[in-house]
Amino acid sequence: MAETMKQIVLKSYARGNPRAEDFALQEVPIPVPGPREVLLKTLWLAVDPLFRFAIDEVRLSGATHLELGDVMVGATVSEVVASNHPDYAPGQIVEGRTGWREYAAVAPDQSDYRGPPRIIDPALAPVSTALGVLGMPGQTAHGGMIDVCKPKPGETVAISAAAGAVGSIAGQIGKILGARVVGIAGGPAKCRALLDLGFDAVADYKALDFAAQLQAAAPNGIDAYFDNTGGAITLEVFKNLNRGARMAMCGYIAYYGMGYEGPGPDHLPALYRTIMATGLSIQGFAGLMAGPNALEDIAGWIAEGKLTYPETVVEGLGAAPAAFASVFAGNAAVGKLLVRVAETS
Amino acid sequence: MAETMKQIVLKSYARGNPRAEDFALQEVPIPVPGPREVLLKTLWLAVDPLFRFAIDEVRLSGATHLELGDVMVGATVSEVVASNHPDYAPGQIVEGRTGWREYAAVAPDQSDYRGPPRIIDPALAPVSTALGVLGMPGQTAHGGMIDVCKPKPGETVAISAAAGAVGSIAGQIGKILGARVVGIAGGPAKCRALLDLGFDAVADYKALDFAAQLQAAAPNGIDAYFDNTGGAITLEVFKNLNRGARMAMCGYIAYYGMGYEGPGPDHLPALYRTIMATGLSIQGFAGLMAGPNALEDIAGWIAEGKLTYPETVVEGLGAAPAAFASVFAGNAAVGKLLVRVAETS
Repeated sequence: MAETMKQIVLKSYARGNPRAEDFALQEVPIPVPGPREVLLKTLWLAVDPLFRFAIDEVRLSGATHLELGDVMVGATVSEVVASNHPDYAPGQIVEGRTGWREYAAVAPDQSDYRGPPRIIDPALAPVSTALGVLGMPGQTAHGGMIDVCKPKPGETVAISAAAGAVGSIAGQIGKILGARVVGIAGGPAKCRALLDLGFDAVADYKALDFAAQLQAAAPNGIDAYFDNTGGAITLEVFKNLNRGARMAMCGYIAYYGMGYEGPGPDHLPALYRTIMATGLSIQGFAGLMAGPNALEDIAGWIAEGKLTYPETVVEGLGAAPAAFASVFAGNAAVGKLLVRVAETS
Repeated sequence: MAETMKQIVLKSYARGNPRAEDFALQEVPIPVPGPREVLLKTLWLAVDPLFRFAIDEVRLSGATHLELGDVMVGATVSEVVASNHPDYAPGQIVEGRTGWREYAAVAPDQSDYRGPPRIIDPALAPVSTALGVLGMPGQTAHGGMIDVCKPKPGETVAISAAAGAVGSIAGQIGKILGARVVGIAGGPAKCRALLDLGFDAVADYKALDFAAQLQAAAPNGIDAYFDNTGGAITLEVFKNLNRGARMAMCGYIAYYGMGYEGPGPDHLPALYRTIMATGLSIQGFAGLMAGPNALEDIAGWIAEGKLTYPETVVEGLGAAPAAFASVFAGNAAVGKLLVRVAETS
């Protein structure tokens, strides 16, 4: 009898915020890699709010979409445990998008648009960083802060979801560029963590006096805004924008899954009014390639001690659904939220 | 007994689209200019949807706001008929913001942020152009097309409300830049007028097959979008945007006065999704100063026969309320909509 493994599948499409009960744990045989396939053992699984799109009943053009019963999509760091492909050898560590399962058989020649699994050098940094500071979140923070926000020394840049995987890196890059960096996060513990990372000031969006905190944190107004949330946080930031401000639109977690209900009726008019009144420029960039030097820059800053990368780790694949749901409920995680699925063999 | 004149005041705040009945015509004495004041006789009044903001019950920060009974705000071209100010002499023609009245006494030293009335040279062009192609609408078209849309030769630029004062000029500037220009307007007559102005293709947003018309008009997708409307038109444009598109946000008539009801619930999520998925950049610019050469460029293009400026004229101050209301109902006017209030003395 084949050895078995755990995987987590979509049980029901999410309405509004995802719940842990939208997922089901299954015990299935470990797959056998076919010709030119590799067998990957999942070590780390990234908890990424982006994949909220995949579990909406409405298929979003251009985004991954799951059918009920499909294994949940997710970025992973894995160990190659068997290989029928000349480019991969057992013992190598790779980063890919193999989903919420303990093992996956992957055909590198038929990979999705992100390309075949990327081989990681474990000597450079802990391999979990391939899902964070030395992976897509790091590239995203780099591109959004350097290419879109473009803060000049002394300008003020605000960041929503600043304690998140992208925001915590983006803020530190803002400091490296010489900007005054204001982090917006929920709760005193996360705000405290941002100050420890070197942010100049913070505003707690869960506090009753959030508006006053934000104004005090940016006494000269806000010149650039790295937005990960949209929603009420962003409307408050809008009130503090200076003329000619830049906004990097990295995410809009406040509106995910709102295809039906929609946001508050004042949100869109407020957005338009702000764009017009301040000459705000907004740019979406997550889908754009970061510059080829993004990861080199980041690795250099880490080596120089200018950049630290907090991680929050939960243990075991079974913890993934609750961790995913917690992101939308405003959890206490600082930095990249990761599931440790297994140790290397 | 003093001579009298007509003026139009706000009778009730607008809810949704303004109605002619929101205004009242009054007969009042012609004002007498005080020290360092000038008396202006209104020749032309611009019908401008922007001033919808002024007649909302909710005061919009940074925008003109009327109290009930106030004279309606509007841009005008006037003749100086009496002057107690050394910079102005009777017989001069000026452009200012004197509102919906036949005469106004103005203090050039205490003018609003737009500065004192601007003296116009009637030898250069018909004086009504100071409210259109050689005034703010022309500058707005120039800035939005050249500085924000930035179409490269061969790229496709779409324009909403393309038959309007700004859109009709913006489209022609797009042609001068070598772009393929697609105009969006309501009804066959306005679409026909755009083709006569040299637009490459048109899409009639009132037609049942608008989506198909737009797709056919932009077979290679849309690289830049000069938006005057927001709303359903803009959502349809979004479906045709190419990666890295630019959007100049000049107006959003679909959402004016929507502070309470809000747009359809899908509008804001669709905007965010599009920004993210295409890397769209959006810039508000109407409030930014146009380059100092904008009006020179435009005057040059007119002289070279490369730019024409349609105008639609209604007669008499009393026609202003209905003309203003018609803008929001999608009227048949092509180019700048003007009220001819009086002839020069």
